[in-house]
Amino acid sequence: MAVYTEVPDEALAAFLADYDIGGLLSYKGIAEGVENTNFYLHTTVGSYILTLYEKRVAEGDLPFFLGLMEHLAARGLACPQPIRNRAGTALGRLCGRPAVIVSFLDGVSVRRPGVRHCRALGRALAGLHAAGVDFPMRRPNALSVAAWRPLFAQAEAQADRVAPNLAARTRDDLARLEEAWPRDLPGGVIHADLFTDNVFFIGDAVSGLIDFYFACTDAFAYDLAICLNAWCFELDGSFNRTKGQAMIAAYQAARPLDPREVESLPLLARGAALRFMLTRLVDWLNVPPGALVKPKDPLEYDRKLAFHRRVTGAEEYGWTP
Amino acid sequence: MAVYTEVPDEALAAFLADYDIGGLLSYKGIAEGVENTNFYLHTTVGSYILTLYEKRVAEGDLPFFLGLMEHLAARGLACPQPIRNRAGTALGRLCGRPAVIVSFLDGVSVRRPGVRHCRALGRALAGLHAAGVDFPMRRPNALSVAAWRPLFAQAEAQADRVAPNLAARTRDDLARLEEAWPRDLPGGVIHADLFTDNVFFIGDAVSGLIDFYFACTDAFAYDLAICLNAWCFELDGSFNRTKGQAMIAAYQAARPLDPREVESLPLLARGAALRFMLTRLVDWLNVPPGALVKPKDPLEYDRKLAFHRRVTGAEEYGWTP
Repeated sequence: MAVYTEVPDEALAAFLADYDIGGLLSYKGIAEGVENTNFYLHTTVGSYILTLYEKRVAEGDLPFFLGLMEHLAARGLACPQPIRNRAGTALGRLCGRPAVIVSFLDGVSVRRPGVRHCRALGRALAGLHAAGVDFPMRRPNALSVAAWRPLFAQAEAQADRVAPNLAARTRDDLARLEEAWPRDLPGGVIHADLFTDNVFFIGDAVSGLIDFYFACTDAFAYDLAICLNAWCFELDGSFNRTKGQAMIAAYQAARPLDPREVESLPLLARGAALRFMLTRLVDWLNVPPGALVKPKDPLEYDRKLAFHRRVTGAEEYGWTP
Repeated sequence: MAVYTEVPDEALAAFLADYDIGGLLSYKGIAEGVENTNFYLHTTVGSYILTLYEKRVAEGDLPFFLGLMEHLAARGLACPQPIRNRAGTALGRLCGRPAVIVSFLDGVSVRRPGVRHCRALGRALAGLHAAGVDFPMRRPNALSVAAWRPLFAQAEAQADRVAPNLAARTRDDLARLEEAWPRDLPGGVIHADLFTDNVFFIGDAVSGLIDFYFACTDAFAYDLAICLNAWCFELDGSFNRTKGQAMIAAYQAARPLDPREVESLPLLARGAALRFMLTRLVDWLNVPPGALVKPKDPLEYDRKLAFHRRVTGAEEYGWTP
């Protein structure tokens, strides 16, 4: 959470002159997003977020992300709406970086979601999957099963410094998941990073989904598996089946899971946990000196993996027919 | 510029329940202020800033700062208005820290002020001094001449590591300023830190003054001297007399300087430069590991001191009768 790029007022004024969003009244660097620099903009017309993309977002992927947000917003999904400049494009440049203005979304992210939040999230996730069905662009999931072994290779030698036997556990998980990873499940656009900080609520209702910079084309049930990991574990490491049940039931009210998805859910959840354990582990072992962002704890996902390994059926996540 | 304290949504909701400012729609940590943690709050009623005071602001000083902002806002000065809770107090506690909600002010701070900004600032400074005249509380300036020698003692041994002969120059400045520092100039409430980032503009007009956490009771002309230092030097280190002239003339349109103030201006400007050189030097030599904030360059003020030492009269700052 940091402002990586300082934007002088003159540079911002010149950038905004290309947009039809009124006169600038205020802008503040905000501590949101670990990958990019974000500013809150208040103009005579409304409120916006200005994002400068730092190096972890590949510039070539931006047309997919921005096109997706436009597509979803046009279908009524509450997500940031990219604002086009007078030349008709949403993607600009500011201070040497790709830069985009999107609509501001009200809402508060909850740090400890309750059952009602999990239910609302399940409904919102199904809405996202439905709204993306006719989105024409494709982006392979760069952090799916094929990426995990190369990720692990960056961390394997030092993994046991982080937790005893972490390397051996991870080798076993990798072998099992690579062998059994389900293919050809129903799929389309998934968010792939729908953690609590990327979901805004007003009261008990979802008011917005943000941060589409891991969005890709993959199995819908994998997105649900990511959310089960991110939303339904308690601080003591236990899985809260009531929360899982609320999330899955709300999702299924809009899009029932088919039998292969149900059967695959334990493996998908285990794979999702491995994906976040691995990226966190690599970040953990590679904190640059002077980093502004504290890396997230990979062992949170090591503990979740221990749960997933013991699961024998989707019922244990709260799935009911 | 950082968020030092994470505020969970549940803690914020409980805190806001004591205030009559509508329902929370959004809050964002903002990168503003190097001393405190600030959040932008958007509610069903309006926009606010929530400040959590970190350890560099003495809790005992908060009644002065908050009382002053209330006093100034009540007199129509555009400054943050502390919001009282239902118990009638503006000062609360959140996440173990003193915390205050103030009104949100629109406006943009300019990084490279032009002559018109200096003129507007001079007018606003005079307005601040006038609005504070009947404020009943007093707070001595803890960073005036008596504080400089103890500050220097913290840095003297290492000063020449920062610039050749910096220690000797500073000893000479200290001796001269301690001997000749003017007493009993016209005074009252001064801001004492009115740098460009603490002044908001909409177009060419000042829309707000913020960050009153160095405000104190001291000579009005010293506040003007701080502003001459902060606003009227060019990036190449030269003093822009046109900017100084605009600022001083605009100030004098509301409150003409008396002959002793005019005569003292060179010494006050030199003292103001020494004050910022010294606090920056101490910070520079004491950057804690993992600091979120890059310290400001003390040598910027060493260069300004070189200018002030050669000044022989207020005319060189742009003063005209």
